[in-house]
Amino acid sequence: MELNSQPPPLVWVVMGSDSDLPVMAAALQTLEQFEVPYAVSIASAHRCTDYVLDLAKAASSRGVRVIIAGAGLAAHLPGVIAAATTLPVIGVPLASGPLVGQDALYAIVQMPPGIPVATVGIAAAQNAALLAVRILGSSDAEVAVKLQQYAAQLQAGVLAKNHKLQELGYKKYLEGMPSK
Amino acid sequence: MELNSQPPPLVWVVMGSDSDLPVMAAALQTLEQFEVPYAVSIASAHRCTDYVLDLAKAASSRGVRVIIAGAGLAAHLPGVIAAATTLPVIGVPLASGPLVGQDALYAIVQMPPGIPVATVGIAAAQNAALLAVRILGSSDAEVAVKLQQYAAQLQAGVLAKNHKLQELGYKKYLEGMPSK
Amino acid sequence: MELNSQPPPLVWVVMGSDSDLPVMAAALQTLEQFEVPYAVSIASAHRCTDYVLDLAKAASSRGVRVIIAGAGLAAHLPGVIAAATTLPVIGVPLASGPLVGQDALYAIVQMPPGIPVATVGIAAAQNAALLAVRILGSSDAEVAVKLQQYAAQLQAGVLAKNHKLQELGYKKYLEGMPSK
Amino acid sequence: MELNSQPPPLVWVVMGSDSDLPVMAAALQTLEQFEVPYAVSIASAHRCTDYVLDLAKAASSRGVRVIIAGAGLAAHLPGVIAAATTLPVIGVPLASGPLVGQDALYAIVQMPPGIPVATVGIAAAQNAALLAVRILGSSDAEVAVKLQQYAAQLQAGVLAKNHKLQELGYKKYLEGMPSK
Amino acid sequence: MELNSQPPPLVWVVMGSDSDLPVMAAALQTLEQFEVPYAVSIASAHRCTDYVLDLAKAASSRGVRVIIAGAGLAAHLPGVIAAATTLPVIGVPLASGPLVGQDALYAIVQMPPGIPVATVGIAAAQNAALLAVRILGSSDAEVAVKLQQYAAQLQAGVLAKNHKLQELGYKKYLEGMPSK
Amino acid sequence: MELNSQPPPLVWVVMGSDSDLPVMAAALQTLEQFEVPYAVSIASAHRCTDYVLDLAKAASSRGVRVIIAGAGLAAHLPGVIAAATTLPVIGVPLASGPLVGQDALYAIVQMPPGIPVATVGIAAAQNAALLAVRILGSSDAEVAVKLQQYAAQLQAGVLAKNHKLQELGYKKYLEGMPSK
Amino acid sequence: MELNSQPPPLVWVVMGSDSDLPVMAAALQTLEQFEVPYAVSIASAHRCTDYVLDLAKAASSRGVRVIIAGAGLAAHLPGVIAAATTLPVIGVPLASGPLVGQDALYAIVQMPPGIPVATVGIAAAQNAALLAVRILGSSDAEVAVKLQQYAAQLQAGVLAKNHKLQELGYKKYLEGMPSK
Amino acid sequence: MELNSQPPPLVWVVMGSDSDLPVMAAALQTLEQFEVPYAVSIASAHRCTDYVLDLAKAASSRGVRVIIAGAGLAAHLPGVIAAATTLPVIGVPLASGPLVGQDALYAIVQMPPGIPVATVGIAAAQNAALLAVRILGSSDAEVAVKLQQYAAQLQAGVLAKNHKLQELGYKKYLEGMPSK
Repeated sequence: MELNSQPPPLVWVVMGSDSDLPVMAAALQTLEQFEVPYAVSIASAHRCTDYVLDLAKAASSRGVRVIIAGAGLAAHLPGVIAAATTLPVIGVPLASGPLVGQDALYAIVQMPPGIPVATVGIAAAQNAALLAVRILGSSDAEVAVKLQQYAAQLQAGVLAKNHKLQELGYKKYLEGMPSK
Repeated sequence: MELNSQPPPLVWVVMGSDSDLPVMAAALQTLEQFEVPYAVSIASAHRCTDYVLDLAKAASSRGVRVIIAGAGLAAHLPGVIAAATTLPVIGVPLASGPLVGQDALYAIVQMPPGIPVATVGIAAAQNAALLAVRILGSSDAEVAVKLQQYAAQLQAGVLAKNHKLQELGYKKYLEGMPSK
Repeated sequence: MELNSQPPPLVWVVMGSDSDLPVMAAALQTLEQFEVPYAVSIASAHRCTDYVLDLAKAASSRGVRVIIAGAGLAAHLPGVIAAATTLPVIGVPLASGPLVGQDALYAIVQMPPGIPVATVGIAAAQNAALLAVRILGSSDAEVAVKLQQYAAQLQAGVLAKNHKLQELGYKKYLEGMPSK
Repeated sequence: MELNSQPPPLVWVVMGSDSDLPVMAAALQTLEQFEVPYAVSIASAHRCTDYVLDLAKAASSRGVRVIIAGAGLAAHLPGVIAAATTLPVIGVPLASGPLVGQDALYAIVQMPPGIPVATVGIAAAQNAALLAVRILGSSDAEVAVKLQQYAAQLQAGVLAKNHKLQELGYKKYLEGMPSK
Repeated sequence: MELNSQPPPLVWVVMGSDSDLPVMAAALQTLEQFEVPYAVSIASAHRCTDYVLDLAKAASSRGVRVIIAGAGLAAHLPGVIAAATTLPVIGVPLASGPLVGQDALYAIVQMPPGIPVATVGIAAAQNAALLAVRILGSSDAEVAVKLQQYAAQLQAGVLAKNHKLQELGYKKYLEGMPSK
Repeated sequence: MELNSQPPPLVWVVMGSDSDLPVMAAALQTLEQFEVPYAVSIASAHRCTDYVLDLAKAASSRGVRVIIAGAGLAAHLPGVIAAATTLPVIGVPLASGPLVGQDALYAIVQMPPGIPVATVGIAAAQNAALLAVRILGSSDAEVAVKLQQYAAQLQAGVLAKNHKLQELGYKKYLEGMPSK
Repeated sequence: MELNSQPPPLVWVVMGSDSDLPVMAAALQTLEQFEVPYAVSIASAHRCTDYVLDLAKAASSRGVRVIIAGAGLAAHLPGVIAAATTLPVIGVPLASGPLVGQDALYAIVQMPPGIPVATVGIAAAQNAALLAVRILGSSDAEVAVKLQQYAAQLQAGVLAKNHKLQELGYKKYLEGMPSK
Repeated sequence: MELNSQPPPLVWVVMGSDSDLPVMAAALQTLEQFEVPYAVSIASAHRCTDYVLDLAKAASSRGVRVIIAGAGLAAHLPGVIAAATTLPVIGVPLASGPLVGQDALYAIVQMPPGIPVATVGIAAAQNAALLAVRILGSSDAEVAVKLQQYAAQLQAGVLAKNHKLQELGYKKYLEGMPSK
């Protein structure tokens, strides 16, 4: 799953700490669901800046087409990577600490003019992967078809739940839901 | 500049109101700077929902590869479009009203699971266009080269300003700056 | 409980996900308490936009007089429905995710000029139903009487608690309260 | 325009201070546009509480069907009125003071269980009136038709602007816009 | 403990719901600690407005010198009482609901010109009582002496903890602390 | 107007900087309106801590009964004074800097257990003075009567504006208002 | 560990309450890790102001070079100390109460002109100590070397985790992580 | 004024854009006031990352003892520099854009464990310089004396204003103040 693995990764998923992995794993699972080859790294913008920059600069030449970077607190990882590549970088603000991601959201989305980061919602690792797939799908008809199937499944899922609600009524529906 | 214009637009820029145009124009200028063909529309998610949905559903088949949607307040336009297409959608929160874009930021970036919107900073229309170009460049080497040139120009611009600062000293530099 | 059920529903309660049902059930219970016929749906603005729009456009002709829509995160459901009907739409911001409903509140209450949504408090599904009943009661004297009785009960409930507090003193009162 | 004027007012618009009138006037103009008879008062929840309560208690019997209350800062007016009537009360948070309406929004929308206020956006007096008209229209077919016409006009307005944009291109469109 | 009890209460503590009692009890305990006679009521600004106003208007004539009012959400109780009396009213914002008291803080502290509420911190019922005692003490030398003794105890408590820390070192000190 | 002036001041108004004077002057004018003798100081908690503490410790013995302290940014002045006296201290958060008083509000209202500050709204210097007068009035019947007269004037002022609005209609009323 | 202990402390760590000790202990552990002699005190800006000021004024003459002050809520301790010394003061906002440190952050970082406090993140006691060490290291080559070693260890730690992730794959890595 | 100028700079002031210079100039003026040799650069963390890193890595060896970095929006400059040096780094959040520095504050102060940034208030460039001087003064008695003189001047300035206020009364004082 490294950047130089085979087949060449189309998406590089990077996070600042292994404590981010339980949330970021949703991105990896989604990429697998779409059969998108990916690399994954733990690499901190602050603890190993040069390593991050080297990987970011090399990513394009190794076949990467989209980068997903997740970080919490004063989250610099997506922006630092975006400064070192011209690939599209998707930033995932993580909900570490007492500000529960509000800090990371601002530190990622408010990038200065010239260096954009495509920001998704707080802890929205699955959506980050779906956005990466949309980007790949914008120049790959096969991927686009998978996205249409995915959208159809999402829709079918909601309609099925609605149908079940009409069948059961809300009280029985609630009884059947797992308690938190 | 319509969706069905020639050459086919690669980017569709849409905003909810013509009052958004002065800010969103920065996206159009940037796309022109990169010689990316684009279409531009005024189309409100709330005032002409069906029209927005029709355009969004048609965009891919007309050649559009990336969509940029700018909106303020309870900004639904990017999300509604993202629900109607599998193309990547870039959302620009606009600073309308007393909450100066904080409302639009939340209404765009916090999309529910399944339907991502690539959010840029508040009023960051130029960055939205650069993100669109990065997405195009991830599968188009020619565009990627332009992005590298752009990055080099950004860098050169900063270094030139720094050089001038060293030459002049900060007091003369300040004297030479336009007053707000 | 569907939109086309008998007797025709006066209130349509819709939510974006079945995970919203435990909170939104308070609205249904309140409508039952006032003997107001209602329909209830799970229907996402993003996962099944067309279905939502079809229901919203049909609601008035099926007898619906008020719509209650609950959603979390970048909550678009109330606004999208309000754009497709001229019925009054009550929006309930739900406290999903780390921003605990602040995002949904902004995404619902800050609707642009022309398309209002009647917003209630975060997770305030009961109040949404009471607002719907107030709207019905504004043209139905029988419902208005029930609302007066309800208000009298609210008042009596507080006064009874106050009376008990005077009787017991605060220490015994506290001992008799259920621990959280 | 008093509560006991002829024809009986269907909507009562009340604000805490005459400094709110320039913003709240948009509600009055909108009600006139829909030919809805209304009363308008200046009456503070804090400076003349009893007067406010007397009016609120009397409103229903004088024919009022919907109340619109605008207030800024720790905005209590909508909630105090809602406690004194069973009519639907629409609250307009006004952007007075350094918190630009964030305080008023919370003080209006977060009403406790039992006493809802239908909250619209900060300073959204026009939307408050449109919501009142939607409430009236939910039991009055003639008003509902006017709302459909209004929605059609909103849509036509956006489409006309879009058409003009296609005709002129964005640069000439911008030149023709009034500078702020 | 009613307003008309003997000895006449100097402080009236009122809260909107008995669910506020576990927090507000700290105010009662503090008043007892200072041997200040008090009355306590549960009385909602919205559910029994007239009862609240009657009590507020009567408070001064029954000997009350300071009022403490605690409320959560769109907390109107302190402001409504302040409008009905010229006594000093201390407001305690309570941390009900997902906004954990931020809403109540704004709804209490941002009172409009003319009707002040002395606001203490979120859930700071003890400080509300201490403020009431300071107000009483400003015209009662005996109370002022008790406050000086209280301040001396506070200081002694901190210095004793500091002394213990110097004795034990921080590791043993931590071992001796109760785990949360 | 010093602390040791004659007649002895009942209220001491202190602010951290003379740049606060234009806002804090409203407190002085209000005290004059109620004929309450006062002292006024510029004294910073950070720039002249010892001076502030000396004045705060001496205030009670010089006849002061209530202290009003206004400060902006990380506003420590009210809390530092409250720690040095047992008199009631009223804090006025001032809207200095880009956070427009949100910082000062938190730095004043969220005092730790044991040392309360009676906080009023952001920049609400007039309300601070009225609160001081209420405190004085709680043990001085003559002041209490003045407060009742003031409340009556406030009410009369609103009712007069309402009467004028009924006479003129809102359009003529607006024409007669000073433009901002 | 007192200010006058031997060897003379280079860093003085002070907190407002012993309830802060579990968080602030991270600073002490970090100072021990770098073999920096330190003193530690519990001393409240509000409960024992004079004691705090005496210590702060004496710190420099007893050999202290940097002060670390942690406090929550309306956190005045760092600022009050900074006003009484010319040593650099590092403030640690603690996450006490419902605002989880947002209040303390503002109350510490927004110090007025003339009296800076070096603010670190909410509850970031370890970073406060590292900042103190950096300050010492800026004039002490031996300490600077330790900081370089520490940075190298941080980097090595991340790279090792990344290596392990490449070895195991993310699923096995997750299985090996401790559950929260 | 470059990093390699003579005499060697003790403080390096760096900002991301020349648009930050009008605010950051206050830091330079303050350093001059204390006769501290400094270097100043314009160097963006995103537009010229490698240049920033090279300077940051070299700073210590060129004699720099403290670094001041100012940036707005998603302000990464201070953190990126702190990751490349073991010198103390002072971050100045600048109030660019609609969030007026709230974004920059979070992006600077909330640095992850291991890499602290000493954060000062929004736009507080003067305080950043004073903090740098305090750091220098903690190992340089001559600088410490200057800081004591500065503190004495601050105090004298406030006391003089207070004296003038006592002399003139507040009305004449206000008349003598420059209007904004």
